[in-house]
Amino acid sequence: MDIILLSGGSGKRLWPLSNDVRSKQFIKLFKDDHGNYESMVQRVFRQIKEVDPAAGVTIATSRSQASAIYNQLGSQVSICVEPCRRDTFPAILLAAAYLHDELGKSEDDAVAVCPVDPYVENSYYECVEQLGEIVRRGRANLTLMGIEPTYPSEKYGYIIPETGESISKVKEFKEKPDRAAARNYLEQNALWNAGVFAFRLGYLIEKAHEMVDFSDYRDLYSKYETLTKISFDYAVVEKEKSIQVVRYTGDWKDVGTWNMMAEVMADDIKGQALMDETCENTQVVNELNIPILCMGCKDMVIAASGDGILVSDKERSGYMKPYVERVNTDVHFAEKSWGTYTVMDAQPGSMTVKLSMKAGECMSYHSHDYREEVWTVVSGKGRAIVDGMEQFLRVGDVVTVAPGCKHMIMADTALSIIEVQIGETISVTDKRKYEPEGAFARQDE
Amino acid sequence: MDIILLSGGSGKRLWPLSNDVRSKQFIKLFKDDHGNYESMVQRVFRQIKEVDPAAGVTIATSRSQASAIYNQLGSQVSICVEPCRRDTFPAILLAAAYLHDELGKSEDDAVAVCPVDPYVENSYYECVEQLGEIVRRGRANLTLMGIEPTYPSEKYGYIIPETGESISKVKEFKEKPDRAAARNYLEQNALWNAGVFAFRLGYLIEKAHEMVDFSDYRDLYSKYETLTKISFDYAVVEKEKSIQVVRYTGDWKDVGTWNMMAEVMADDIKGQALMDETCENTQVVNELNIPILCMGCKDMVIAASGDGILVSDKERSGYMKPYVERVNTDVHFAEKSWGTYTVMDAQPGSMTVKLSMKAGECMSYHSHDYREEVWTVVSGKGRAIVDGMEQFLRVGDVVTVAPGCKHMIMADTALSIIEVQIGETISVTDKRKYEPEGAFARQDE
Repeated sequence: MDIILLSGGSGKRLWPLSNDVRSKQFIKLFKDDHGNYESMVQRVFRQIKEVDPAAGVTIATSRSQASAIYNQLGSQVSICVEPCRRDTFPAILLAAAYLHDELGKSEDDAVAVCPVDPYVENSYYECVEQLGEIVRRGRANLTLMGIEPTYPSEKYGYIIPETGESISKVKEFKEKPDRAAARNYLEQNALWNAGVFAFRLGYLIEKAHEMVDFSDYRDLYSKYETLTKISFDYAVVEKEKSIQVVRYTGDWKDVGTWNMMAEVMADDIKGQALMDETCENTQVVNELNIPILCMGCKDMVIAASGDGILVSDKERSGYMKPYVERVNTDVHFAEKSWGTYTVMDAQPGSMTVKLSMKAGECMSYHSHDYREEVWTVVSGKGRAIVDGMEQFLRVGDVVTVAPGCKHMIMADTALSIIEVQIGETISVTDKRKYEPEGAFARQDE
Repeated sequence: MDIILLSGGSGKRLWPLSNDVRSKQFIKLFKDDHGNYESMVQRVFRQIKEVDPAAGVTIATSRSQASAIYNQLGSQVSICVEPCRRDTFPAILLAAAYLHDELGKSEDDAVAVCPVDPYVENSYYECVEQLGEIVRRGRANLTLMGIEPTYPSEKYGYIIPETGESISKVKEFKEKPDRAAARNYLEQNALWNAGVFAFRLGYLIEKAHEMVDFSDYRDLYSKYETLTKISFDYAVVEKEKSIQVVRYTGDWKDVGTWNMMAEVMADDIKGQALMDETCENTQVVNELNIPILCMGCKDMVIAASGDGILVSDKERSGYMKPYVERVNTDVHFAEKSWGTYTVMDAQPGSMTVKLSMKAGECMSYHSHDYREEVWTVVSGKGRAIVDGMEQFLRVGDVVTVAPGCKHMIMADTALSIIEVQIGETISVTDKRKYEPEGAFARQDE
């Protein structure tokens, strides 16, 4: 079957590891069976493939995440990039049209839509397969997964099924309730609505044509900005009469806060850190290249990245959003299609960054109007094109790039460059892109 | 009167702000009356001058601290540098000989010796003046300051006076006692021995000649390495019969741990940091250029520098020494006579540092055998001498310095340079110094 993963929202709830350009699903705090660190998006992809090696995975996402997805999953997945942010109905419709018109999938194919961020067992994806099976057998137009609640939460929407059986027709949907209402729902075998559902591809394409005037994927893409912002729940689910729900009774964790993330991360310490014996129930994530020493920390989470440092009581970590908004959250770290970009120093008139490029990757051909750059190669080998001239890059080479000068770097091996940017106005928006003059196909964001 | 300040021991008890090359007395956590941050050594100097503007101050210290002292106090103080570490008797003797032979002080001058690190009120230095007065009147060969104890501490040596009066003859000295003995001493009006004492300059010179064969300061300096390691207490104080002690009853704090430092630092937050309203009794010092967010921290001290990050319960902070020894404590920050040196990135084969030079300062003329350096000027103006050739340095200039190439930088204004060091072996010991070829007098360490 085909699975559309909705990879949404950048956010600061896992600051300083998540920021405006780095979503929480790309932070590598989990581990695969070989003990290698993996991110949520890598974990989800791995789990889907373990359950169904034939599953096709398409990630519906925004332009800003495409580089990180490519960087973490390579070409194993299709990426359907929204030209701008609309709500879930346009995003799912665009991905469905992409499957049908670009990947040539049949209208009879079963398609499941899943969010990319819950921490679950493989049985969750077995349940997703079951949704597809129900769709394929024509037993319902829509099948949903319902999460067996562990407590009367006020944070989730509820699905009230007709029966308490493992597969049931849906009686009704309920918005986020108060505690008393939630308790009442639980007595009716209610389930949390976790945004997982499946349908025949043709079903959605038909629905879409009733609601939106478009011919095919490319046409839809071109008029995407004109689409109404509307959620899939509101546009489709609530109007559909033929809906079944499958109960998922396994582990399901919403790792949207450090408190929850600390519970499921693979190791108590990731990165350079040391805790004394009196530390209790504390986790440390350190992406900096300097050590963290923890003495007597209890029930805490400590996270450090190039963007900042969080020292938080676990309970309080859920309330950090307004505080994060008050600190200086200049982005110091970004994952690019070609590797990583780390700001090491920023002063008025200059910024010093470390570029770590992966072997075989290259950046886009571009120029800056308002800054010059001085590159010093500190490890690896590569090539640069500067105003059309190709030159080799070796350790110790220094290249000066004047404002207006077109340039790109290709990494022949893993390549590390210290780049000093100099100019009155240094901004990520000061960038003009050009068609590459050599034969270098892929471009970064 | 003349005051010799003993500026000793680098150490890690205030890690990551103190390290092998940066002693705690140079960390700027206090404030002067104008609200400017000052270090302990600046605070002590200011207090001495407030009490006695005519006081001469000589700092007895090691070679490694001379740059930081010059950087923080300029030429307001004399610096007597020990060629190598001996104990307090040789250090005080060398400083006394320096006062007598180099600064031309009279044998009848009163000299007081004080440690550089207690946090005290100005009345402490009034008490030091009183010691000098007693010496000048010839009432004792040695006068000591005794600190009125606030509790029966096991951490300090005790002075037992003959009476409980504000000035008394000394009956005997006691080593660090157990709690019960300390209680017993307190009943005898005992005082903490904080290493403050005064004598006639001639008295010490005479004593010294009885014990060490030397002619004058330069002779003593040249044979300093051959001197026996012995403390002043052991060599002089315990053998002297004519000793008086003056009670000091004001505030006196030993800021040797973060717990104590947190109590006396000027602000709860220094540097970029934010605490939510649920934080209690917590102090944050942040020397990094990224923010620290604290949520729900209770009774903690958090300190971050280029060397590392400490997150500690206050009580536990006194026990961190063995843990600091286990973390990677590469020194990332050093205070130089000409400004500061901050390591921003270290990889096998390269190191990237930021040099921040003060206007008017210059570094020594030197070369490296095993690394090349690439300098990029990011702010300010200056000049470089590279293999005898002077060149101007302006923002955006790039200078490449090959291994073996002699070089120095002079700052005409405040000057900031990003220096990329490249070489298989990068070490602070890879440095040869030369006489400057221009007319540049002062050299760094």
